[in-house]
Amino acid sequence: GKRMRPVLTLIGGSLFDVPANESIHAALAIEFFHNFSLIHDDIMDAAPVRRGKPTVHQKWDANIAILSGDVLFTEAYKQLAHYRDERLADLLTRFNDTAIEVCQGQQLDMDFETASSVSEEAYIEMIRLKTSVLLGCALEFGAILGRADVPTRKLLYDFGVELGIAFQIQDDLLDLYADPEKFGKQVGGDVLANKKTLLLLTAQRQADQQQDDRVKALFVMDKSEAKVETARILFNELGATDFVKAAQQQHYDKALQSLEALPLPDAKKEPLRQLAAFLVNREY
Amino acid sequence: GKRMRPVLTLIGGSLFDVPANESIHAALAIEFFHNFSLIHDDIMDAAPVRRGKPTVHQKWDANIAILSGDVLFTEAYKQLAHYRDERLADLLTRFNDTAIEVCQGQQLDMDFETASSVSEEAYIEMIRLKTSVLLGCALEFGAILGRADVPTRKLLYDFGVELGIAFQIQDDLLDLYADPEKFGKQVGGDVLANKKTLLLLTAQRQADQQQDDRVKALFVMDKSEAKVETARILFNELGATDFVKAAQQQHYDKALQSLEALPLPDAKKEPLRQLAAFLVNREY
Repeated sequence: GKRMRPVLTLIGGSLFDVPANESIHAALAIEFFHNFSLIHDDIMDAAPVRRGKPTVHQKWDANIAILSGDVLFTEAYKQLAHYRDERLADLLTRFNDTAIEVCQGQQLDMDFETASSVSEEAYIEMIRLKTSVLLGCALEFGAILGRADVPTRKLLYDFGVELGIAFQIQDDLLDLYADPEKFGKQVGGDVLANKKTLLLLTAQRQADQQQDDRVKALFVMDKSEAKVETARILFNELGATDFVKAAQQQHYDKALQSLEALPLPDAKKEPLRQLAAFLVNREY
Repeated sequence: GKRMRPVLTLIGGSLFDVPANESIHAALAIEFFHNFSLIHDDIMDAAPVRRGKPTVHQKWDANIAILSGDVLFTEAYKQLAHYRDERLADLLTRFNDTAIEVCQGQQLDMDFETASSVSEEAYIEMIRLKTSVLLGCALEFGAILGRADVPTRKLLYDFGVELGIAFQIQDDLLDLYADPEKFGKQVGGDVLANKKTLLLLTAQRQADQQQDDRVKALFVMDKSEAKVETARILFNELGATDFVKAAQQQHYDKALQSLEALPLPDAKKEPLRQLAAFLVNREY
């Protein structure tokens, strides 16, 4: 993994002069939770590979994946229990709320697989829950540890959530438009798997009857480079790619607005500005 | 369910004059955790029925059982987060350690199914982890909420753990010796399923070569009342039943020793004494 989430907690803490050896436990809680959720999600999605290696349920079995996930989840709470002062209740409350939202996001994602139609708003809400709130939580942990006031905490949380949505949309875009040399995995994987992505949902909304037939024809094409290229042509023609990029930009802008509103010296914000730019411009 | 575990927290709190409306959140945390662990265990054990009703994975599917278990686990932590003062860290630490031990107990239980031999000590350790530590945790929660000192907390915890072992052994005994009228489920279920129980493990240890052959012959008998009666005769002949009752009495005595050592007026201990007697003498 990129270990982006624990780094967010360390950076969040550094905004308020929390030393890394103090924020490390909160950072580990975030990373343990993230890996727990991947282990359980991979069972539910029957995913064979994660980070280029067999998933836990694939390498061992589903029972071991359920149980070791449960233990890893608990290990996250053990990291939080290192903070034995008045900050613990706030850390715990944010973490619990986030954990439940991540589970809700996973449930929505599974529901969408069999749903006859999914709106773009519902899709964004799904990625907000499944991915983005954890980035918000990771950053807010830094603010809680630094004893920032509630409005400041909220600005940092919102920055993380909006950035997370832009980050996840970048995943959708890269899947179809990445440079194969840089991407490191198969370009077009979502199209080949007929996955409902924001690009596809937007294309379907934009399509007239005849174009909609072409989208449906895409679903039954064999897995091939031709299928991926057909999707690219169709999505460009329907303006889906531009729409999705515009949506991404909106969330990125919102993130930066929250960042700018933070009552902190500009120099302190620079690492987050750079990280944000990296996460939505990345090519892999 | 009998809701024995949350009641232990309420009684534990009452020892230190914690009002029930204050200890209720800790009691709910225990009950939520217990139900989370049952939901996940039932997936792993492929159990179709729980409390006379279809299990979650049976009624819905394994994915929903995994995810709703994860949410219920988090809801337990949300209950703990109601305590926003200096007691929270102690509650959280005891809870985390207990949760990990319960998972370890479930793993041991699964390991034992395919193990060629299991010692009685290992079996007792398994039930200590899988069942008893949660009873200890439930009681200690009451002491933590009542701001009892660490030695007092430990006495109450130990009382719960030893009582839990005696309680679980009663389950083993009842399965074979219960009055069918009172038991509410099939008597002899463990024997019919060839389950490794403390009775069976003790019988195997006591058996000479010829008796061991009779134990092995039991495994291949058809599911019938004759199989259950054969087990009863064999276990009695080998003294397994008496051994197991003696082991149960040992843990029960240890539990009562911890209870008596508690620095509290005798009248305060009476409800726990009565509950302990009920739990190991129960006929259902």
